[in-house]
Amino acid sequence: MNDKSAKEIGEFALIERLRKKLGSVGNDADVIVGNGDDAAIIKAADGKCWVVTCDAQVGGMHFPSSENVSGFAVGYKSLAVNMSDVAAMGGRPRFALISLGIPEETPISFLDEMYGGVRALSEQYDILVLGGNVTRTSGPLFVDVFLVGEVVEEKILRRSGANIGDRILVTGHLGNAAAGLHFSSRPHIQLSEDVHASITRAQLKPQPCVAEGVAISESGLANAMMDISDGLAGDIRHLCEASGVGALLWESELPVSSTLLEAASVAAKKPSEWALYGGEDYELLVTTPPESVEALQEIVRQAGGALLTPIGEIVPSFEGISLKRADGIFALENFAWEHFSG
Amino acid sequence: MNDKSAKEIGEFALIERLRKKLGSVGNDADVIVGNGDDAAIIKAADGKCWVVTCDAQVGGMHFPSSENVSGFAVGYKSLAVNMSDVAAMGGRPRFALISLGIPEETPISFLDEMYGGVRALSEQYDILVLGGNVTRTSGPLFVDVFLVGEVVEEKILRRSGANIGDRILVTGHLGNAAAGLHFSSRPHIQLSEDVHASITRAQLKPQPCVAEGVAISESGLANAMMDISDGLAGDIRHLCEASGVGALLWESELPVSSTLLEAASVAAKKPSEWALYGGEDYELLVTTPPESVEALQEIVRQAGGALLTPIGEIVPSFEGISLKRADGIFALENFAWEHFSG
Repeated sequence: MNDKSAKEIGEFALIERLRKKLGSVGNDADVIVGNGDDAAIIKAADGKCWVVTCDAQVGGMHFPSSENVSGFAVGYKSLAVNMSDVAAMGGRPRFALISLGIPEETPISFLDEMYGGVRALSEQYDILVLGGNVTRTSGPLFVDVFLVGEVVEEKILRRSGANIGDRILVTGHLGNAAAGLHFSSRPHIQLSEDVHASITRAQLKPQPCVAEGVAISESGLANAMMDISDGLAGDIRHLCEASGVGALLWESELPVSSTLLEAASVAAKKPSEWALYGGEDYELLVTTPPESVEALQEIVRQAGGALLTPIGEIVPSFEGISLKRADGIFALENFAWEHFSG
Repeated sequence: MNDKSAKEIGEFALIERLRKKLGSVGNDADVIVGNGDDAAIIKAADGKCWVVTCDAQVGGMHFPSSENVSGFAVGYKSLAVNMSDVAAMGGRPRFALISLGIPEETPISFLDEMYGGVRALSEQYDILVLGGNVTRTSGPLFVDVFLVGEVVEEKILRRSGANIGDRILVTGHLGNAAAGLHFSSRPHIQLSEDVHASITRAQLKPQPCVAEGVAISESGLANAMMDISDGLAGDIRHLCEASGVGALLWESELPVSSTLLEAASVAAKKPSEWALYGGEDYELLVTTPPESVEALQEIVRQAGGALLTPIGEIVPSFEGISLKRADGIFALENFAWEHFSG
């Protein structure tokens, strides 16, 4: 029998398989957005909708084993990554359920720190934890968060709305989390304290772009939005597939921080590699007509976000997805950060 | 440092700790039921509410490793246990998100069977799978389901509504799943084929009491409801704590099937032990004034449920929780099926 394993098939193929085997949005009047975006959306009262999403953090996969990471960072990140998915639809996070799988030897102090990390973010953003579940596991600790956010129906932003001619923009800086991951497994390599702290924070304590996402959605100026969790190169592909378009990215415009430049120099890496193919940035990827770029940048600044950088343009789908470099235009490698690619 | 482990503290204490550290229902107009019941409830449109809950099934804990169990049973049960929580609030399951943690060696055929198990139940009950998440884990497979159900606000049934003098009733039969678990680890013991099939089905493919729960809630006759997932003895305690009352259970009235009697006889066990202390029955525990018992039984029959059996009465809290046996009245042992008690 030709029975492949999960590893042989890969994460994205597994997700697609799950979607095909189970997803059946049908014709339900209560469902506004079904399977296949950053989050699903169902109706609430008074023209409001609930954005629903889930994402699990697993020890050894998303964070090191509990001896080598703070419980605070684990709790914080488990909520942050879900907030990013809600923000990517233009939603404001409201309620969480937290499902924990706990190895029996886990110290209670670690769990208390973890709750502290969840609490820090949930208090900052006024998110209510409505319940959860605790189970034992013989494997690594996992924290699975189900997050419910709020959005007004007319303001929902999907992956599928990009139009040919749109500018592609991204919030913040790219690649810092990937640099953090790189150096976390190479503690013997010396980095300046500032750089080390900054890339470690990017990896362990990502800042979800909630204010930016809400402001962009409320402006009505953007056509499409998603968050960057698997790396820009993989995620722009998801956006293009959903919108039926292609994209041309401009390598020279990718927003990389001076911190990343220093870290890349020490690691002898190209900064743009981390910016394009590193995962876990949790920035927002947005498309908007060229004439709205400046207004949208001002709106993000007003919302407290610093940067909204044009990094390319939406092109017809037959042109594919490509990268403009100093030496020419090249097809963008189809390489995203896959959980099963090891 | 006096740092206990998860095992030393135990599941219920961990859940309570999680609730205290994170639960903060506050004064949110959109929250109808917060932390501490079978599920939380938030507002939807047109007087409807969404019931939200999550529960994970973990390999080696809730089901044997994937070589010794069918993927179908794993998928089926992971949805069924969540449906039971929604039914316990009087809700009808509507939407699911499915979060998977998959060891990389898992055969795709196992995952496909698992999706088949989810699909069998979701199609039967018209539940839409709106999304999910797939991640790798170095530990056992886990399936975490986030379920959204629908209920009309006035028809919500909580754990906290039981009144002194109420009769305590339970749907179906108790103890079959516990018998199934007992014999699953003792394959060398001979049981008649019928009995074996029946208790195995009870353990691996519990039937959530959706029609019964909705009918009981819509009748307006019940005062309190919850599902029995940790065993009657533990769950009646949760209901009493939430309602501020005590309970007297009648051992002779516990609904045990002829199947259970035969299995108990082969195992040299008391059937009432399984009925009281076995977990995973997923029946409903209901309280109602004595004069409504017959009407409620008729309503459950009409809804397609066979049994709704009076098994005791609600008493003042100072009388505690006790069991009336042939030889007298005894305090009910505080023993529930705890994931961390091993």
